[in-house]
Amino acid sequence: MNDRIFNLGAGPGVLPEPVLKQAQQDLWNVAGSGMGVMELSHRGKVFDRIIVEAEAACRELAGIPDNYRVLFLQGGASLQFAMVPMNFLKRDATADYLVTGVWSQKAVQEAKRFGIVHEAVSSADRNFSYVPPASAIRYSPNPSYVHFTSNNTIYGTQWRAEPTPPAAVPLIADTSSDMFSRPIDVTKYGLIYAGAQKNLGPSGVVLVIVRDDLVEAGGKELPTMLQYRTYAKDRSLYNTPPTFGIYMMGLVFKWIRQEGGLTGMAERNAAKAKVIYEYLDQSDFFRGSAEPESRSLMNVCFRAPTEELETKFLAEASKRGFEGLKGHRSTGGMRASIYNAFPKAGCDALVRFMKEFEQANRAAAVS
Amino acid sequence: MNDRIFNLGAGPGVLPEPVLKQAQQDLWNVAGSGMGVMELSHRGKVFDRIIVEAEAACRELAGIPDNYRVLFLQGGASLQFAMVPMNFLKRDATADYLVTGVWSQKAVQEAKRFGIVHEAVSSADRNFSYVPPASAIRYSPNPSYVHFTSNNTIYGTQWRAEPTPPAAVPLIADTSSDMFSRPIDVTKYGLIYAGAQKNLGPSGVVLVIVRDDLVEAGGKELPTMLQYRTYAKDRSLYNTPPTFGIYMMGLVFKWIRQEGGLTGMAERNAAKAKVIYEYLDQSDFFRGSAEPESRSLMNVCFRAPTEELETKFLAEASKRGFEGLKGHRSTGGMRASIYNAFPKAGCDALVRFMKEFEQANRAAAVS
Repeated sequence: MNDRIFNLGAGPGVLPEPVLKQAQQDLWNVAGSGMGVMELSHRGKVFDRIIVEAEAACRELAGIPDNYRVLFLQGGASLQFAMVPMNFLKRDATADYLVTGVWSQKAVQEAKRFGIVHEAVSSADRNFSYVPPASAIRYSPNPSYVHFTSNNTIYGTQWRAEPTPPAAVPLIADTSSDMFSRPIDVTKYGLIYAGAQKNLGPSGVVLVIVRDDLVEAGGKELPTMLQYRTYAKDRSLYNTPPTFGIYMMGLVFKWIRQEGGLTGMAERNAAKAKVIYEYLDQSDFFRGSAEPESRSLMNVCFRAPTEELETKFLAEASKRGFEGLKGHRSTGGMRASIYNAFPKAGCDALVRFMKEFEQANRAAAVS
Repeated sequence: MNDRIFNLGAGPGVLPEPVLKQAQQDLWNVAGSGMGVMELSHRGKVFDRIIVEAEAACRELAGIPDNYRVLFLQGGASLQFAMVPMNFLKRDATADYLVTGVWSQKAVQEAKRFGIVHEAVSSADRNFSYVPPASAIRYSPNPSYVHFTSNNTIYGTQWRAEPTPPAAVPLIADTSSDMFSRPIDVTKYGLIYAGAQKNLGPSGVVLVIVRDDLVEAGGKELPTMLQYRTYAKDRSLYNTPPTFGIYMMGLVFKWIRQEGGLTGMAERNAAKAKVIYEYLDQSDFFRGSAEPESRSLMNVCFRAPTEELETKFLAEASKRGFEGLKGHRSTGGMRASIYNAFPKAGCDALVRFMKEFEQANRAAAVS
């Protein structure tokens, strides 16, 4: 053990420890330059190598074809909620949204400012506790694009595979909370975006992977910083980018590569989630919140028998070195976020603690 | 000496060494939380203290009145070039811009997408080598606002004092490259914005100080992330903010306070610039680029007798541990950026080196 606790927070979340160790050094003097990584000119040679290597590692991990651009933006997924319709949804045209939670709903709200939104499916009927089956999706006749949220942090649900849009309609995904937690077939998408702060790096930088034809689809009357072409033309260097965030993302990409790439991450994440879900399935004290076939490998949401016991559980968990377990305010309960960098040992330790708590508090639950 | 060189880059630029040392520790475990500063939930207690303290230190430094909000945004000054007119310039209305360089011009270009721009003054006639006198400014009859750029990094010019707009017209300033390098009377402004990466912190976070009445002036039909009210309502926590950038800014604010506040910075920066300008004024080899009465205390631009000698100077400077001295590609020559965190010892060392170079190369200049 060291002086760090188990960080189960939903994001900004835990980062790989070797990455943090490297960053500590580079903050002072990176690559023998005599300058810290935050102090580098974005037009200089040292940073140029950093951004080139970050893009290359990203492309290698996901096998990104040459007709896709890899871009580093700012403003979080929330700015993408606006940029996507501003660039791709023409006035009086329709875009299809698959609604599986609050973040999908926010994307819908923002898109409505720019055109017509068709909710092709929604799981609001059962409080977003599941991801709808493909058979339930009803696309509009000719959507500009189809948008979905690959993982729903708040409810602990995740798409097993991406939905299939109508032929020639671009698929756009907010993958903020499960990007690079498993293999992804980029060719199925028109555009993928992900805020870094769960699996990829610190908050303040957004990874965008976009197909060339879509780069040029947006209107040139849009604000410069809201056109994808601005970033594609200048390799994300039109203005000063979030240099430190890009540096961190590059380190995380290299760490993922070293840990077996996206296949390695998928195996690791499946094994981590299994420990917790298997325990939940046999417990008659705790219960999982999401419907089993829709369960997220990133965010495991669960409840205790009463709210009092949940409060007690969270307080004791904190004392035992488990932080960030409190569920989202809209759902209550508990949520264990076990992103790429969260260790298997942490899942094992959490389950040991849950078992202890269950035994100690079974009487309180029954009475 | 240590293993760091003199970083004279125009930004992202040098940061205070005590701040870097603190950040190195906090990257691993901040405030005894067992989590690194980048890994903190933006809704948790530890980060809450960070952002509250950052805002408080900022307010204290500049004596910011209660009717101004202090906000942390993303997208750089370049996104502010769009957000300012989107929020404050109505279609068919006019905004006045004081044009003193490329960054002012970019702000103008962006504003033209949203309304009518009146260039109330420009120093383009002498390649932006000066800041126009107040007497040269011709405001339009009833501008929505007046916008100026307080310091012009590329040409090494700086406003001595802010211009005075017509009565009741909000003054808006891009202070990216001289924010908190000297005292600022916030009450003279409607809105002040500054990308952090020169005097305040790493790139990827923008400080915005805005008067309450302007917070609510923007249209509610604008994209959520482009309305100032979104940030004001939720204390910059509507979505996940650039947490690490805000943390760094807070550390830098505290460092400035410890070094004598804005008055301390102004004295320090005046003394630093004086060393270089006094040398330039008596040299018949090097010459300053900006007109003397408009000289910037942040960016000292200068030329050598020939471009060959400039190339030689830059190469030798780099070997001697002076980095980032190359002038902007649009002007050529040299530029010494001596932001808050750049030490006086570095200015002294630079002048010693310039003298040596002058003596060694005087013959080449005459021949």
